Amino acid sequence: MSRMLDEVREQPEALARTLAAELRHIEKFRAFIGRRKPRLVVLVARGTSDNAAQFGRYLIEIATGIPVSLAAPSVHTIYGTRMNLKDALVVGLSQSGESTDTNEVLEQARKAGAVAVGITNQARSALTRIAEHVFLVRAGREKSVAATKTYTGQLMILYLLAYALGAKIRIADLEAIADFTAEALTLETEVSAMAERYRFMHHAIVAGRGLNYANAFEFALKLMETCYIVAERFSSADFLHGPIAMVEPNFPIFLFTPSGPTWPSMQEMLMRSQEMKAETVVITDRRNLAAANLASRVISIPARIPEMYSPIPYIIPAQLFAAALALEKNLNPDRPRALSKITRTM
Amino acid sequence: MSRMLDEVREQPEALARTLAAELRHIEKFRAFIGRRKPRLVVLVARGTSDNAAQFGRYLIEIATGIPVSLAAPSVHTIYGTRMNLKDALVVGLSQSGESTDTNEVLEQARKAGAVAVGITNQARSALTRIAEHVFLVRAGREKSVAATKTYTGQLMILYLLAYALGAKIRIADLEAIADFTAEALTLETEVSAMAERYRFMHHAIVAGRGLNYANAFEFALKLMETCYIVAERFSSADFLHGPIAMVEPNFPIFLFTPSGPTWPSMQEMLMRSQEMKAETVVITDRRNLAAANLASRVISIPARIPEMYSPIPYIIPAQLFAAALALEKNLNPDRPRALSKITRTM
Repeated sequence: MSRMLDEVREQPEALARTLAAELRHIEKFRAFIGRRKPRLVVLVARGTSDNAAQFGRYLIEIATGIPVSLAAPSVHTIYGTRMNLKDALVVGLSQSGESTDTNEVLEQARKAGAVAVGITNQARSALTRIAEHVFLVRAGREKSVAATKTYTGQLMILYLLAYALGAKIRIADLEAIADFTAEALTLETEVSAMAERYRFMHHAIVAGRGLNYANAFEFALKLMETCYIVAERFSSADFLHGPIAMVEPNFPIFLFTPSGPTWPSMQEMLMRSQEMKAETVVITDRRNLAAANLASRVISIPARIPEMYSPIPYIIPAQLFAAALALEKNLNPDRPRALSKITRTM
Repeated sequence: MSRMLDEVREQPEALARTLAAELRHIEKFRAFIGRRKPRLVVLVARGTSDNAAQFGRYLIEIATGIPVSLAAPSVHTIYGTRMNLKDALVVGLSQSGESTDTNEVLEQARKAGAVAVGITNQARSALTRIAEHVFLVRAGREKSVAATKTYTGQLMILYLLAYALGAKIRIADLEAIADFTAEALTLETEVSAMAERYRFMHHAIVAGRGLNYANAFEFALKLMETCYIVAERFSSADFLHGPIAMVEPNFPIFLFTPSGPTWPSMQEMLMRSQEMKAETVVITDRRNLAAANLASRVISIPARIPEMYSPIPYIIPAQLFAAALALEKNLNPDRPRALSKITRTM
């Protein structure tokens, strides 16, 4: 099989371990930051970590009301701008802790007076030396170039960060995420069997909304990296503002459709896609019968998951699908062409 | 031909008219905002206007050092979050002024204490009623569904907005943009002749960096809407963090490569793409001989344009290319399937 698939399976344990180990640490940070609430949170990252940051952008705004910005690294690294980041919390995310531009932005932000936080899977890295506050993803070494367990680990840390910033998040609800993730992993046989149908898929659209928008980016990136598929990612709203025009009959569209507040918007996209005779695949839950009835193919997670805690378990079938499809296409997801585990850009 | 092409050609006059008409207005706003400098700028938009907002995000940060965030409308419209937007400047951009989610976010922001600005091509619209300060794109009615002259008009207003926020921008430099745009339009015959080569192109990558990153989004959107091409958009840095793996020999990659600070990063992407035997097309200027030497095909703008003022003239050949390729494919760019001029989403 692949290291990627092994690492996908390790996630329930990795998530439980990360939560247990970082909880005391986050309580200390909560006490520290409670006295100096940031006026702005800036998240900076690249690749899969940037997709995790995209999740953090929605979660922190929704759960705390503090405005969040995804940093544009070039503003700092190429244009050399000195930003006004007083009273800002700047958070760098990197699996390896060695992402050159992420580290550069964090270092400049710290000099500009921001509180600098690092989230990484590597306790000893450039990132942990630059950040004042470090939270560690305890995923164990990630050997596959295609990141999986570090993505969900970063999402878990971002829930903790939102909690530290005042979000009404119960730690017991975070503990349940590892169980939801284990339930999602029971779909492995079903999802693997589906892969054959998509053997000759050359392009695709992946869509999500709100808290699952980041998953659309991450699923698309996995399809690009491990299956060499030209995979576009949109929110259900952005899709209707132009990209829908390119949908031909049988165009494959993957949609994250949890029950809850984002469903009406995703439903509109699903119905419009069906009108265009697209091939639609929904990742959903057993309660969402409407999604199952509308779509061409359904991947249905057994657990009853509140939308707030859906992103981690919902990415699992997507990771399983990408790993299985890579195998189906005789590609090695652990070593995509032209990529290495650490990418340095400025 | 097409209304789209007519409207592409109208841009030098539309830009000059917009600048002349809004200048006095922006000076008043400059005096107003100078006494209450925002701690944060939030830009909210959809579709092509969102691509203009992406430009504004870079320009305002680079030229003023004020942090900028692109709003995630669902945080407001779907999750009903009350954001802390005190001392923020919130800017809604919409060609029609009737974008439901953009207007909803702006209205909520105003209630939350933000200064609310509207940028639109429609003097009488829901947006102009909601915004406290309105800046009008004077492009004349845009009849093609594919937006062109309203995009560059929004970019012009964003330069003026950055100026009002304290950027060192000379109005004389903004006046020169209309001339650069006219020079870019002289490429029409050359670009149209190129289109045949791409008649059977089904997917593509468009890349830019920094101030031209937004143009990568806009060119990709035009290819999706008017030519039904699955067009992905990346920064040159993000491309190296995963998507490069999907590049097969002859994969078409379009790159915005102005001379100046973003060139080293774009050059790295161009060289890596050539290694993968991709088909590379650069939109560049006569000074950038290195880009011309590396690429498979070159579109070279005659004028000597400072990188700071390159985005408006640089999108012109991209618009010309999309309009010509649509014609080549027997598609009508003015009426893409499944789209109408005003899209309402929440």
